[in-house]
Amino acid sequence: MNPLHRLFNPRSIAVVGASDRPNSIGARALDNLLVHSQFDGEVYLVSTSKAELFGRRCWPSVRDLPATPDVVMVVVPASATIEVLEQCADRGVAFAVVLTSGFGETGEEGLAVEAQMRAIAARSGMRIYGPNCPGVCNVNARLGMTFSPSFPHDLRPGPIGIATQGGGLGRNIMQAMERGIGVAMWSSSGNEVDLQVADFIDYMADAPDIKVIVTLIEGIKDGPRLVRALQKAARNDKPVVALKVGRSDYGARAAASHTASITGSAEVNSAALKQLGVIEVDDIDELVDTAWLLARQMPAFKPGGDAVAVYCGSGGAAALTADIIGQQGVKLAQFAPETTAALLAKLPSYAAVGNPVDTTTAVLSQPGLFDATLLDTCRDPNTALVVIPLAIDYGKVTDDTAEAVVRVQQQSPVPIVVIWMSDRLGKAFSTYAQAGIVPSRSVGKAVKAIRRWMDHGHWRQRSDRLDWQPWPTAGAAPAAGPATPLGEAEAKALLGAAGIAVPRSGLARTRDEALALAARIGFPVVAKVASADILHKTEVGGVAVGLHDAAAVGTAWDRIHASVRERAPQAVVQGLLVEQMAAAGGVEVLVGVSRDPVFGHVLTFGLGGIYVEVFKDVSRRLLPLTRAEAERLVREPRSFALLDGARGRPQADVAALVELLLKVSDFVGAHAQQIDEMDLNPVWVGPAGQGALALDAVIVGRLDTAAGGAA
Amino acid sequence: MNPLHRLFNPRSIAVVGASDRPNSIGARALDNLLVHSQFDGEVYLVSTSKAELFGRRCWPSVRDLPATPDVVMVVVPASATIEVLEQCADRGVAFAVVLTSGFGETGEEGLAVEAQMRAIAARSGMRIYGPNCPGVCNVNARLGMTFSPSFPHDLRPGPIGIATQGGGLGRNIMQAMERGIGVAMWSSSGNEVDLQVADFIDYMADAPDIKVIVTLIEGIKDGPRLVRALQKAARNDKPVVALKVGRSDYGARAAASHTASITGSAEVNSAALKQLGVIEVDDIDELVDTAWLLARQMPAFKPGGDAVAVYCGSGGAAALTADIIGQQGVKLAQFAPETTAALLAKLPSYAAVGNPVDTTTAVLSQPGLFDATLLDTCRDPNTALVVIPLAIDYGKVTDDTAEAVVRVQQQSPVPIVVIWMSDRLGKAFSTYAQAGIVPSRSVGKAVKAIRRWMDHGHWRQRSDRLDWQPWPTAGAAPAAGPATPLGEAEAKALLGAAGIAVPRSGLARTRDEALALAARIGFPVVAKVASADILHKTEVGGVAVGLHDAAAVGTAWDRIHASVRERAPQAVVQGLLVEQMAAAGGVEVLVGVSRDPVFGHVLTFGLGGIYVEVFKDVSRRLLPLTRAEAERLVREPRSFALLDGARGRPQADVAALVELLLKVSDFVGAHAQQIDEMDLNPVWVGPAGQGALALDAVIVGRLDTAAGGAA
Repeated sequence: MNPLHRLFNPRSIAVVGASDRPNSIGARALDNLLVHSQFDGEVYLVSTSKAELFGRRCWPSVRDLPATPDVVMVVVPASATIEVLEQCADRGVAFAVVLTSGFGETGEEGLAVEAQMRAIAARSGMRIYGPNCPGVCNVNARLGMTFSPSFPHDLRPGPIGIATQGGGLGRNIMQAMERGIGVAMWSSSGNEVDLQVADFIDYMADAPDIKVIVTLIEGIKDGPRLVRALQKAARNDKPVVALKVGRSDYGARAAASHTASITGSAEVNSAALKQLGVIEVDDIDELVDTAWLLARQMPAFKPGGDAVAVYCGSGGAAALTADIIGQQGVKLAQFAPETTAALLAKLPSYAAVGNPVDTTTAVLSQPGLFDATLLDTCRDPNTALVVIPLAIDYGKVTDDTAEAVVRVQQQSPVPIVVIWMSDRLGKAFSTYAQAGIVPSRSVGKAVKAIRRWMDHGHWRQRSDRLDWQPWPTAGAAPAAGPATPLGEAEAKALLGAAGIAVPRSGLARTRDEALALAARIGFPVVAKVASADILHKTEVGGVAVGLHDAAAVGTAWDRIHASVRERAPQAVVQGLLVEQMAAAGGVEVLVGVSRDPVFGHVLTFGLGGIYVEVFKDVSRRLLPLTRAEAERLVREPRSFALLDGARGRPQADVAALVELLLKVSDFVGAHAQQIDEMDLNPVWVGPAGQGALALDAVIVGRLDTAAGGAA
Repeated sequence: MNPLHRLFNPRSIAVVGASDRPNSIGARALDNLLVHSQFDGEVYLVSTSKAELFGRRCWPSVRDLPATPDVVMVVVPASATIEVLEQCADRGVAFAVVLTSGFGETGEEGLAVEAQMRAIAARSGMRIYGPNCPGVCNVNARLGMTFSPSFPHDLRPGPIGIATQGGGLGRNIMQAMERGIGVAMWSSSGNEVDLQVADFIDYMADAPDIKVIVTLIEGIKDGPRLVRALQKAARNDKPVVALKVGRSDYGARAAASHTASITGSAEVNSAALKQLGVIEVDDIDELVDTAWLLARQMPAFKPGGDAVAVYCGSGGAAALTADIIGQQGVKLAQFAPETTAALLAKLPSYAAVGNPVDTTTAVLSQPGLFDATLLDTCRDPNTALVVIPLAIDYGKVTDDTAEAVVRVQQQSPVPIVVIWMSDRLGKAFSTYAQAGIVPSRSVGKAVKAIRRWMDHGHWRQRSDRLDWQPWPTAGAAPAAGPATPLGEAEAKALLGAAGIAVPRSGLARTRDEALALAARIGFPVVAKVASADILHKTEVGGVAVGLHDAAAVGTAWDRIHASVRERAPQAVVQGLLVEQMAAAGGVEVLVGVSRDPVFGHVLTFGLGGIYVEVFKDVSRRLLPLTRAEAERLVREPRSFALLDGARGRPQADVAALVELLLKVSDFVGAHAQQIDEMDLNPVWVGPAGQGALALDAVIVGRLDTAAGGAA
C-alpha cells in the first residue's frame, strides 16, 4: 500500500476551523465535504466557538476528539496553525492538510513558521500537505478536502491523475472536463513544506484507478525524489505528461518568485525528463490533448506502423492537416491495398481515396457510407490512429457525423482524434465531449499531441527503457571546500589513468627536456604553456601547433616564453606541456559534464564551435550513461551528419567516441562528490578505427591529485 | 473605383436557376438573398420552368431580362452553365458568379468546360467568379450571393476581409465571429477560372471598410498578380495575414490535388510573402488571433518600446505566460519608475509589481483596485500591449473581471490581449467576445499572435518597405529552347564582365600556356580540367590546388590529364582552367539563384556546407535585390556569426559580399528570360577590405555566349 493511501482514501476526517460564516474557507471546506462529497467515513468538526454546526457536534480541539482521524484538514487562521499541527502530531494523526495561506509566500516570517511545520513533521512522522493550497480533489472517490467553490463543478471521474504545486493551473486542467476528460484525482502541494509533487506522482504510479499522470513542474525541491517517482511510473507503464514552467529566462524568474523553488536549467530539465520517459509539452492545453490521447489508448504499433490516416469531407481541411502532420514529423500511413480497394468501391470517383481520404460531401447523402468508410480507414493495418479535422460546425450534418464517429470509435482498433477547428461549439461538440472523444481545438495542437503519442510509443519499444539507475551517491552534497580547476596536465593524467585516451604528453621544465620529450612522443607535437595562473593560453601566445622537428620545438620554447613574459608577466610558468598532435581528418567534438542542482551530474555532447554556440545543437543525459543511451546521445545532434560521413568526409570512429563517453561517465561516478564540472573540448574523433582523443581538458572540483603528467 | 466594386456592391442582381425546391441550391441562394440580406437593389429571377417564385416574376432567360444586371448568380446545373454564361456575355453583364459545382474538380471533361468559360471571359470582358464556390458574403453590406445555409448565422460586421479559394476553411474563419471577430466580407474563388484570390486582395486593399486582409494560399495561379495585390495592400497600410497550405510534402501533395494549382516551394513562398510584408501564420486559428489583434490596433511603438506587460492574479498563469513570451522572443517591458511606484502604492506587499504583475486575489476584494492597477499597467510608457492570462473560469469573479477589462480597454492606449485558457466558457467569455476583445484560446497561440504583431510593427518602421519593384519582365515566359549548363570558364567570364569578382583565370590549351598563364596570374594558383563533358571535376582527379610554382603547375598538367584520360576516357578536354587561389582566412558562402514557377527569380544565401544541408540555415529574397534587402539578407542566417567575427575569426568583408549580391541581381535581371539557375558555390569572402570572389560558378539556362576566359 502506498504511504499516501490513507491521505487520499481516508476512513475518517477532522475539519479544524469548521465554520458556518458564509464564504469563509471553513464553511466552504465543510460544504464540499458534507454536501458535495460522497464520503461515508467519519467526519469530526473542530471549532473553538461553536458546539454544533449544521446539526453536527463540534469538538473544541483535536485533543478532545473521540478518535484519531486519518486526515485533519486545517482551515484555521495562519496564526493558529502551529498549535493545531502540534496537537495533531501529539495525537498521532497521519496526515494534516493545511489549506490556510499566509506563510512562506508572504515573506521571511512566514518562512520561519514553515520551518516549524517541517520540524513537527520530522519529529512526529506526521505528513503535512500544503500549506497555501486548494487541497485534495479525489474525483473518483467523490471526496473533496478543499475549500474551492469549483469542486462541485469539476466531478467527471476518469483515469487521469493531476499533480501540481499551484492551484490555478491545476484547476485549469480540471476544467478540461468540459471538453470530456475524466480525472481520477487532483492533488496540489502548495508551499510544499513536506509533501511534494513527487510524492503525489509516486502515489499515482501505484493507484489502480489512474492510467496517466499529468504534472506541472513549477520548481523542483528534491530531484532524486522526483526521479524515483518518475521511474516508478515508468515501471508501472503509466505515462507522465509534464509541463515545465521556467524554460525561458522570463519564465524561470517568474516561476522562482512564484514557488520559491529551484527551476534549474531548462535544457537539463528537459533532457532529464525525456531520459526518464516523461512526455514534456509546451503549453497547458497540450497537457490535456496529450494525456487524454494516452489515456484513451496506449501507443502500440508494429515497426513502421507509427503512421496516421486523415479522414475528412473537406479538401482544404484535409490538406491543412496533412501539411501540419508533415511539418511535425508524423507519418501519413500508406494504406494497404485492401483499404484502398474498399474505399474505391464505396466512395464516388471524384473522392480522394489516398491518404488524406477526402470523402467529399458524398458521405452525407448516402446512409451508412460515412460509418463504413471511416471504419475501413480505422482498420487499415498500417494506421495507428485516425484524425478527423472538422473545419466548420454545420449544424445537423455535423451532429449526425458526431454520432457516427462515436459509433465507429466503439468498433475501431485505433483511436480517432477529432479536431474541432471552429469557434462555434454546437451540439456535436458536446456529443464528442460526452463520449470521451475529447476534441482538440486546433490542428497544430492536435498534431503535436499525436506526435508525442507516437514518440512515447517508440520509447515504450526500447528494451532498455527501465535500465537507468542513478548512482548511490545521487542527491548527496558535494564534498566540502571550494571548487578549483585542475591544471591541464593534471586533468589529463587523471583522465589517462581512467582509461580515457589523451594525447601522449609530458611536462618539460627546461628547453632540453622539451626537445627530448618531443622526440619520445613522436613528431608532430603541440606545445602549450604550463601555468596554473594562465586560463586562456592562446590569448597570451602560449600555444604552438604543428611542430614537425626538434628545431621547431626549440623555437616554440623561446617564442612562448617570450610572449608569456610580455603578456602575462605575473604568471608562474612551470614549463611547457608537450603533446602528440592529433592527425588531420578527424572531427572535433565537445564533451561536458556539469552538476545540476536538481538532477546531479549531466553530460553534454555536441560538435563544438558554431554548432553549439549558435545552433545549440547538443544532446544531454543524466549520468551514469548506459551504453544504449550513449549510442543514442551521439546520434541526436543534427550535426551528427559530420561524424557520419557527410560532405565526403570519412566515417568517424563513433565506437571509440562511445567508449570514451562511457569512461567519462565511470570517471565522474568514481569522483561524484568531488567533480563539479568537466570540459573535454575538443575531443578529436578520428576516422573509423583511429580512436578518439581528449585534446584539452578542464576539471573543476575538489579532486585531490598527486598525479603528474608523463608521456 | 476598384474594378471589382460592382461585383461586391451591385445595384442589381439576377439569379439564374432560381427555384423553390426545398434544399436546392437555387432555393437556398434565393433565401439568402431575399430573406437574410438587406439588399435594396433590383433582383431578377430567371427560371426556365416557373413564371413566378415567392411572389416575384421570373424571366425565362437572361436574354429576356428587362435590364442588364451588374451581377448574375448562376445556380443552374453544370450542363446548362455555358449557355447561361454565353447569354450573360452577350448581354454585357459585368460579373457572373458561378456557384454550381461539377467542373474541373471532377476530371478532364470538367476542365474542358472551364476552358470554355475562360474563353467567354476573355472574348467578352465579363469577369467570372467560381465555379464550385460558396459565393460572396458581403457582411458589412449584409448581402449574401451564396447558397450556404450558414450565411444567416455569420453576420457580425467588422474590419476583416477574407479571401480564400476553398469554402471550408473560409467558413471556419467566419465562425470565429463566435469569439468576437467582425468580418467585412468573405470572398472565395473556387476553381478560379478567371477571378483569383489575388483579385479579391486587390479589391480589399481599396475597400474603405476593410482594415486587415486574411487569406489562405492553397495554390497560386498567377504569381505577379498576387505580388501586385499584396503590394497595393502594403501601400494602403493594410496588413495581409496569410496561411499557406502546402509547406510540407504531405501538405503540398494534398493541396495540389485539392486545388489543382501550383503550390511552389514552401521556402520560396514564405520568403516571398515575408519580403512583401505578409504576415504568415502556421495554423488557421492563428490567422484569427493575429488578424484581429492587427484590426484592433496597428502596431506602433517607439524604438525599444516593442515590449509587453503581463497582468494576472495567478502566479502560475503569470509564470507560464512569461515563459512562453520568452521562448517566442517577445520582450517583457521594463516598467517605468512611475508605473512601479503606482502599483506598489496600490497593491498589497506580497503582490508582485514587477513584470509579470501578479496582483494575487487582493484585487478582487477591493473595489476599483483591479481597474486602477490594470490601467496603470496599460499606461506604462514602455509597454506596447498588455496580456491577461485567465487560467480558470471562476464564475462571478471572472464575470466581474471581464467587465472591468472591457472598461479599462476603453481608456487604455494599448491593446489588452486576454487569454482564455479554460475549456469552460462562462458568461465572461461572451463578455469579452461581445466587446471585441476576442480571447485567445491558448497561451502559445496568443503569444505567437503578439510576436507577429510586434514583427509587423518592425516591418512598418522600415523606410524601404515599399521600395521593391519586380522587373518589367516578371511573369514573362522563359526564352524558348532547352536549358543547358555553361562551362565554368564561360560562366566566370560572363560574371566577370558583369562586375562580379571572380579569380583571375584563363584557359590554357597547352602545358606551356598553363605555365605562362600561372605566372601572369600570380602564384599560388589552382588548376581544373576544362571539359564540357565533365560535371564533377574532383571525382575524375581533375582539380589541383595550392600550386606554388611553375614546376607544380607542370606536374599538375601531367597528373590531371593522365587521371582524366583514365577515369573519363570519352571526355573531350579543352585544356586546364588556371586560376588565382583565394587567400586563407576567408569564409566560404553560397549564393544561388533559381526561377520559382510562381514568383520568378529568387536568390538564396547561406554559409554553405553543413549549415545549409543540415540546418537549412539560408535566407532568400525575390529578385531584384535592393541594397537594404541585401544588407538584411546576409545577416539573417544564424551562421552569420561566422562572418561577423565569431570564434576569434576576423570580421569578414560583408560590404564586398553585399556588392557581389547586388551585381548578381543585376546580372540575372539583364538575362532574366535566359537564366534558370545559378550556383556560385563557394563564394570566398575575405577579411574586411579583402573583397569577395566567386570561386566556382554554374549557370543553367539559354545564354548565348561567345565570351572566352582570359586572365
